[in-house]
Amino acid sequence: MSIVICGGAGFIAVNLLDEFLQDNQVFVLDNLSRGSLVYLNKYADNPNLKFIEHELSDLDQTAKVFGEINDISSISEVWHMAANSDILAGVESPEIDLRDTFLTTHCILLAMKNVGAKKFYFASSSAIYGDMEGKPASESSGPLLPISNYGAMKLASEGLISAATESFLDIGLMYRFPNVVGVPATHGVIFDLIRKLKNNQSELEVLGDGTQQKSYLHVSDLVGAMLYLRDYGKVNSRDVFNIGPVDDGVRVSTIAETVVNRVSPGAKINYGTSDRGWVGDVPKFSYSLDKLLATGWKPKLSSLEAVKLAVDEISVQLAEF
Amino acid sequence: MSIVICGGAGFIAVNLLDEFLQDNQVFVLDNLSRGSLVYLNKYADNPNLKFIEHELSDLDQTAKVFGEINDISSISEVWHMAANSDILAGVESPEIDLRDTFLTTHCILLAMKNVGAKKFYFASSSAIYGDMEGKPASESSGPLLPISNYGAMKLASEGLISAATESFLDIGLMYRFPNVVGVPATHGVIFDLIRKLKNNQSELEVLGDGTQQKSYLHVSDLVGAMLYLRDYGKVNSRDVFNIGPVDDGVRVSTIAETVVNRVSPGAKINYGTSDRGWVGDVPKFSYSLDKLLATGWKPKLSSLEAVKLAVDEISVQLAEF
Repeated sequence: MSIVICGGAGFIAVNLLDEFLQDNQVFVLDNLSRGSLVYLNKYADNPNLKFIEHELSDLDQTAKVFGEINDISSISEVWHMAANSDILAGVESPEIDLRDTFLTTHCILLAMKNVGAKKFYFASSSAIYGDMEGKPASESSGPLLPISNYGAMKLASEGLISAATESFLDIGLMYRFPNVVGVPATHGVIFDLIRKLKNNQSELEVLGDGTQQKSYLHVSDLVGAMLYLRDYGKVNSRDVFNIGPVDDGVRVSTIAETVVNRVSPGAKINYGTSDRGWVGDVPKFSYSLDKLLATGWKPKLSSLEAVKLAVDEISVQLAEF
Repeated sequence: MSIVICGGAGFIAVNLLDEFLQDNQVFVLDNLSRGSLVYLNKYADNPNLKFIEHELSDLDQTAKVFGEINDISSISEVWHMAANSDILAGVESPEIDLRDTFLTTHCILLAMKNVGAKKFYFASSSAIYGDMEGKPASESSGPLLPISNYGAMKLASEGLISAATESFLDIGLMYRFPNVVGVPATHGVIFDLIRKLKNNQSELEVLGDGTQQKSYLHVSDLVGAMLYLRDYGKVNSRDVFNIGPVDDGVRVSTIAETVVNRVSPGAKINYGTSDRGWVGDVPKFSYSLDKLLATGWKPKLSSLEAVKLAVDEISVQLAEF
C-alpha cells in the first residue's frame, strides 16, 4: 500500500514524511513552484520515497500518474497539501488560487475515483471563516464568508471533497489550519520579517499597526494532530476539524520584537497605521478548538512558544542559504 | 445604466425580466445549453432587451462581452443565474458543475472587476447545506458539507463572491434557493413526473419511496423575495439569505398524486424503496426562514399551493410542445 502526498515538497508536507516513511511507500507529487527538492534531500537514499515532478491542476496527467502509482502499489491514502500559499498573489490574480488551490483538488479527486483510492486528507484553512469580527470560529459556524481568494478556494475544495464522500470516497477528512510556523519556512510573517531584517539590519517595516492578533501552531503540533485524527477512529466519513493552539494568540508586534531580538537586537520597528496588514488579513481571529480537544488531543506548544521556536528555526534556516 | 443577467434565458431569470424591463436596459447572456430563446419570445419587440448567445465559462470572451456592454450602457447590476441545473449529470461528471456552475462565477467576477461593475446578485442553493439530518438549515449553520457537486460548486461560488466583496464589489448578495417551481420549467420533480406520465399514462415510476419531504417555492415568490432584498437597504455588503416558503414542505408522494390527478387520473404510482431518490438527494430537509422573515418579507404561497399551481402551469406548458 502507498501514500500519495500532493504538494509533498512543501513546508507542511515535508514534516509528515518522517512519520509516513516508517511504514509506507510514499509518492510525493509537486510542481516545485513553491516546494523545493532541497527539503527532500535528507530522504535521498530512502527507497520508500519516490518524488515525481507533476502539475496537479492538469486533469489528464494527474489521472495518468495516479494510475501509474496505483499499478506499482495500491494507493491507500491521499494527502492534499498543495496550494498557493501566497495569499496576496491570489488576491491580485484569482486564477492562481483557482488553479493551485482548487483545480488541484478537482483533478486529484477525479484521479482517485479512477483508481478507486478512498481516503482523502485535506489541508484546509481558517481562512474559510473570513472575518468573524472577534467571534470564535468553530466548525459549526456559518455563514462561511472568506475574504481572500485563498480562503474561497479552500472552501470550494472542502465542498468538492464533501460531495465526493457521498459518491466514492470512504474518508474525506478536512483539517482547518491556523497560521502554522516552523521549518522549512517558505512564507509567512516570521519568514518575511527575518528576511527584511537581514536586508536592512537597522530598521524593520511591519505591515499593519502590529495589533493584529492570531494563533500560531508549530508544525510539529499540526502534524501530530493530523495523524492523531486520522487514527482516532471516531471521525465521520466527511469531517472537519479546526486545529490550533489553545490560547488567544500573539500580536504581530510581539513577533516583530522576537525577530528583532533574535536577528538584530536594537533595530527600530516601524509599524503601519491600519489594523489590517493586507486585503484578506483579519485584525483579530479567535479559533474554537473544542471539537479537537474533545478527542483528547492537546498541543505541546502555545502560540508564543511556537513563535519563539520558529523564529530560532527560521533564523538558522535563512542563515544556511 | 444596464442590468446583465447571466443565464438569462433560463427558468428563473426569465421570471425576473418583466420586472427589470420596466426601467432598465437588460442584457441577457446565455449559452442556451439549458435556457431557450423560446422563453424570450414575448420580449422580441422590446428595445430594452438585448440577447447575446455567450459561453460564460470562457474568461477572455466574458471580459470582452462585459466590456462591450459597459461601453453601450454602464453596468449597474449583474445577476448570476447560470448553472448546471441537472444535479445528477454533475454527480456523474463533476466537470459539468465545475464549468457551468463555478467557472462561470469566476469569469463573471473578473469581467466585472475589469469594467468596475460593483453589484452582484447570486442564485445560490440550499444544496450547499448537504444533509442536515433534519436539523433546520439556517444561514448561521455550519459546517457546510454539500453532498452533490452542484451544491459544492454553489458553495465555491459563494466563497469567491464573498472574497470579491472584500476587494472590489460593493454588494455580493447571495440567495439560497429551495426547490423552485413554476414555468417555463426545464427540470425538477414536477416536470419529470408529468413528462413520464405523458409517455406512459397508466403508470408512474417515482424515484425513491415517496417519503422525501422538501419545501417548494413558487418562482413568483422567489422573484419577489430577491427584488425585495435587493431594495431592502439593510443587507450587509456580503450577505446570504435563505429563501423559501414558511412550512415543512410536501412529500414526493403528494406531488406524484397531484400530477396523476391533473394529468392522468387513476394511473398507478410505483415507488422505489430508498428514502433517497438519487445521490445528492436528502430525505427530509428543513429550512430556516427566520432571517428572511425578519426583513418583513412573506411568501404568498405555501409549498402545497406552489406545487399545485406549478403542476397546472407545467401541464399547460408541456401540452404546448
